[in-house]
Amino acid sequence: MDSRTEQVDTPRSLDDISTPGRVADPGEGISHEELALAARNHGLPLEALRYDVTPPGLHYILTHYDMPVLDASAWTLTVRGRVRTPLALDLAALRSFPAVTHRVTMECAGNGRARLTPRPVSQPWLVEAVGTADWTGVPLRTLLAEAGVEPAAVEAVFTGADHGVERGVEQDYERSLPLADAMATDPEVLVAYEMNGAPLPPQHGHPVRLVVPGWYGMAHVKWLRDITLTDTPFTGFQQTVAYRYRQSPDEMGTPVTRIAPRALMIPPGFPDFMSRTRVVRPGPLRLEGRAWSGRAPVTKVEVSTDDGHTWHEAELAPADRHSWSWRHWHAPWTAVPGTHVLTARATDAAGDTQPVTQPWNRGGFGNNAVQRVTVLCEPQ
Amino acid sequence: MDSRTEQVDTPRSLDDISTPGRVADPGEGISHEELALAARNHGLPLEALRYDVTPPGLHYILTHYDMPVLDASAWTLTVRGRVRTPLALDLAALRSFPAVTHRVTMECAGNGRARLTPRPVSQPWLVEAVGTADWTGVPLRTLLAEAGVEPAAVEAVFTGADHGVERGVEQDYERSLPLADAMATDPEVLVAYEMNGAPLPPQHGHPVRLVVPGWYGMAHVKWLRDITLTDTPFTGFQQTVAYRYRQSPDEMGTPVTRIAPRALMIPPGFPDFMSRTRVVRPGPLRLEGRAWSGRAPVTKVEVSTDDGHTWHEAELAPADRHSWSWRHWHAPWTAVPGTHVLTARATDAAGDTQPVTQPWNRGGFGNNAVQRVTVLCEPQ
Repeated sequence: MDSRTEQVDTPRSLDDISTPGRVADPGEGISHEELALAARNHGLPLEALRYDVTPPGLHYILTHYDMPVLDASAWTLTVRGRVRTPLALDLAALRSFPAVTHRVTMECAGNGRARLTPRPVSQPWLVEAVGTADWTGVPLRTLLAEAGVEPAAVEAVFTGADHGVERGVEQDYERSLPLADAMATDPEVLVAYEMNGAPLPPQHGHPVRLVVPGWYGMAHVKWLRDITLTDTPFTGFQQTVAYRYRQSPDEMGTPVTRIAPRALMIPPGFPDFMSRTRVVRPGPLRLEGRAWSGRAPVTKVEVSTDDGHTWHEAELAPADRHSWSWRHWHAPWTAVPGTHVLTARATDAAGDTQPVTQPWNRGGFGNNAVQRVTVLCEPQ
Repeated sequence: MDSRTEQVDTPRSLDDISTPGRVADPGEGISHEELALAARNHGLPLEALRYDVTPPGLHYILTHYDMPVLDASAWTLTVRGRVRTPLALDLAALRSFPAVTHRVTMECAGNGRARLTPRPVSQPWLVEAVGTADWTGVPLRTLLAEAGVEPAAVEAVFTGADHGVERGVEQDYERSLPLADAMATDPEVLVAYEMNGAPLPPQHGHPVRLVVPGWYGMAHVKWLRDITLTDTPFTGFQQTVAYRYRQSPDEMGTPVTRIAPRALMIPPGFPDFMSRTRVVRPGPLRLEGRAWSGRAPVTKVEVSTDDGHTWHEAELAPADRHSWSWRHWHAPWTAVPGTHVLTARATDAAGDTQPVTQPWNRGGFGNNAVQRVTVLCEPQ
């Protein structure tokens, strides 16, 4: 038997290859385009929640265009716009500023998108687009103080070296932060050149990226090459077209900013290859995982072993100095033969918690519906 | 608008969660199960073909079950069965043997599966499940010589510490090699403890894995814990049920072994985020990529810029001492406005080449149909 490979359409213009955002039709399966993104990018294999700090190859990755190849020895960061003294810093100059290290949990704003109905067509995450790393670099406010912020400045615009087309707009990847966030001390925004004590890997922004603790991943501009202070709010594609909470394509929407609370569980036992359903033996075991929020400290994690009918409070690891990193939690469970749906939900000090039913938005952003882990308990 | 999350069925037994292999129905989209595999595992982002040696986080990964967490200081490799002196080696003992390093291109046997019609339901690779690394370790034949191979031995069976269920069969991941392959000098099978000069990352088999140059990835057993020489051929799941070329589920099939030739191109220009279609400017540019075969050295790479109507021979990098690693190739191309479908095909010294139309098999193994890269050339 022969099988043809997929047909390639013949695009005639940018509009043919770069179409407006859309949601999938009822019953429409994941397309080859979504699959191509899922094959290049990747989430955290959930068993890797056991690491306090995620090894680089297991930390989630979402690259909009291609990873650019940058020569660290030729790289320069410019700081300009509404500053008194524009800067042009090479890596040695950047490293000459006092360095700090922050442990930060990062999550893609589109995490959970593929579980929505109707499904926004984009990177099809289920639940795993997260990771935690130790980022070392220079506080952004140190660089801005060095350049001297003019009173007229209201935002800092960050430009990466990654270049592509999105919904018909050719662009370098660019995002902004309000000046108050850019200058904040907690969380402190970093211009980072090390991940877990080593130079940034290519896929995490080599040689330099922005790290914005508490914010979804779109704010952490990779392959950073320019910071421009502006006297009007930035209206670029990734700020005003993409990364907005919207119900319809016509509305302005509200910006995607900080990470909503979420708890994830290390799936217990062992999996079936294809269904990923878990198998455990009868008897006592420990449920454990991580919980985080970019809005306020996590104050409570609850666990349910009966698909959300009843909840029990898990034990949270003590708060430590890593206030922008996930926290470990654990809870005892005695597995009895049968099928169980396990879930956990996090609540933060701002009173936000995780929904069981996810409110829908057109971009599929900020989803934090509880994870559901189906477990079959069988005697050996 | 609210959206429900996916329903979780209630499995009653292992047979409910671990079903026979199947192919998708006509028009059946990628399922959440396939997507869960695509989100955990990942391919090589094709722009990373520019690296001679793939950084670990960009090298493809396919994990059948969960990554086990192994304590390197407590790890032991046993060598037993049809040997004169069974061995139990800790990491220090393994490192005490003379080490060698081989640069090896590894590819998943299921690469290309999701491009088949009908689609075998499994990890849905398109074309990107490949990577190249420098693996350091002890030649397997050194260890087998140390143990003393009995004349009755015919195969070596390798057991990993990864445990799960697959099509109803609970198992540790296990594969075998014929003794002749296990003892060969070229390619030389490695018991490897370093990747690119560093300890193996968790997802690549920490602390020790098998590396079988020239073979598809299923042979390179990760998290290796036991080697047993047997006097009959191994009939375990991964040898006789999975990883066979078959047209129907009932036939015995033939084993999946060595990597078929393939060339991949670094997609030129820059992409559209969603369609991944490429955009280039008019003018001369260099097409380049990598080519490999696990059967014999690559002898020729041809490039077509008109969807396979005409072909031109690319320049292959000179053969070097890395005979089991991919080779760089390049070819000039002058882009003119319009749409172009670029492709490349590799031929090896055994006379094998890449098909334009892929012969189908039920597991979706050994696909090496040519990659097709659609490029829109537009003036700035």
